[in-house]
Amino acid sequence: MKISKAVITAASPRQRALPLQTLVDRDGVQKSVLRIIVEEALRAGVEEIAIVVCPDDEAAYAGAAGDLAARLTFVPQPAPRGYGHAVYCARDFTGQEPFLHLVGDHLWVSRNGQGCAEQLVEAAEREACAISAVQASRETLLPYFGAVGGRRVPGRQDLYVIENVLEKPTPTEAEQHLLVPGLRAGHYLCFFGLHVLTASVMELLGRAIRAGQEHVTLSQALAELAAQERHLALERPWNRYDVGVQYGLLTAQLALALAGRDRERVLALLLELLAQREAAA
Amino acid sequence: MKISKAVITAASPRQRALPLQTLVDRDGVQKSVLRIIVEEALRAGVEEIAIVVCPDDEAAYAGAAGDLAARLTFVPQPAPRGYGHAVYCARDFTGQEPFLHLVGDHLWVSRNGQGCAEQLVEAAEREACAISAVQASRETLLPYFGAVGGRRVPGRQDLYVIENVLEKPTPTEAEQHLLVPGLRAGHYLCFFGLHVLTASVMELLGRAIRAGQEHVTLSQALAELAAQERHLALERPWNRYDVGVQYGLLTAQLALALAGRDRERVLALLLELLAQREAAA
Repeated sequence: MKISKAVITAASPRQRALPLQTLVDRDGVQKSVLRIIVEEALRAGVEEIAIVVCPDDEAAYAGAAGDLAARLTFVPQPAPRGYGHAVYCARDFTGQEPFLHLVGDHLWVSRNGQGCAEQLVEAAEREACAISAVQASRETLLPYFGAVGGRRVPGRQDLYVIENVLEKPTPTEAEQHLLVPGLRAGHYLCFFGLHVLTASVMELLGRAIRAGQEHVTLSQALAELAAQERHLALERPWNRYDVGVQYGLLTAQLALALAGRDRERVLALLLELLAQREAAA
Repeated sequence: MKISKAVITAASPRQRALPLQTLVDRDGVQKSVLRIIVEEALRAGVEEIAIVVCPDDEAAYAGAAGDLAARLTFVPQPAPRGYGHAVYCARDFTGQEPFLHLVGDHLWVSRNGQGCAEQLVEAAEREACAISAVQASRETLLPYFGAVGGRRVPGRQDLYVIENVLEKPTPTEAEQHLLVPGLRAGHYLCFFGLHVLTASVMELLGRAIRAGQEHVTLSQALAELAAQERHLALERPWNRYDVGVQYGLLTAQLALALAGRDRERVLALLLELLAQREAAA
């Protein structure tokens, strides 16, 4: 299995300005959030990238991608019909091929310098099936994510076969359907905003959408996927930063800086600001 | 003298995305940089605000101003002819009135909760003349700012009569023309990106522009202003954050957060990130 396409969803009407925000990346270069995500996809070896956008955002996003804009295909989502529908908008782009999928409001930081998407794509090509990055997360975080249940692949610490998927489960639902042997008590495997998906997912999304469902979730299609083909979860010691929440951009910027070239400089800047405030207080 | 108009310059072609960047303000509310500056002007009591922009940026900037957009007049700068020319573009808006001027790539934080622009306007109305906010800055910062020379107003610690203005002076020029008695050795009064200016400034800018000068600086017009009417410099213990430089947005965000409602929360976030990185390192 070779992954040569990526789909980035950035069509949420509430977060249209998010991909245009600028951050200084680990390499010390100022870039838009969109460009950081596009570079994450390119490092994973994909050749073509579709970005699902609100109609009319193409020009601004192309500007934010800079000289990488030529490698992007913009796919408008005609109406705000939810996340699953946004992914489905890229079905003509992905065709019958598997694809890397990244959400447009997260940034990912690995600890070993290799890209998170790159590692996920490597695993998908080796295992030749759909695979979603997950993170063991406290029960209190369940209201924010899709979560999976399943069992560890024998002999692997970081790989699970997914058996159940639930979108934003209650603690009771999670306890009944998503317990994963070997995980710390009160912890569940939550989606990380990074997936390698097969063409079946587009079929499953299309079926739900044609059935007239409002706000089809990706989790629902992935639950059906896990019932019909092998779907793995990869858990690595990565960090994910949701730039759409309060102080999300600040947190992502600090995480990038502390993991990057300018670590010492940013630590000095922090100390200076803290000293300044103490002097003022 | 009553100040009822403000002019914000945001037409630099290199920094068109800057006013669209979002930060969480001291009140814990997420806002665009543009909106934070507009609110700074409104707190100072002005009633009308002109924003000098690159042609075509009006719609995006109006969106970034949110429900304050109705109070803004957008003035396109037809070609990138420099900072002085950008100010001059607002001459029909200001007419014969004095006006508050704020640069569109800085944020200002005072220590007493009162707005910096508000304090500057109060001083201008009391003194009934042009007045520029300045900061005593190390000689090494001279390449980045306009700087003034002058003498302290008798009996005032924070007020100077400006006698000379030079744009980005060399250390030798500064030593010859900008020494201010009473300042620490090696320090000069540098502009702060906040001014109250009189209609004479528009006349002086217009004269230089009509004379065919390329890239007319505001400093040049202010040098001429100081020769023909009273022009004061106000030095208060404020902080200024240039959001256009590397890590400028990060620094401004941290400064706002540490001076605001969410101080404790952001300190906790800093500690958590630092601990996370140490664990990863």
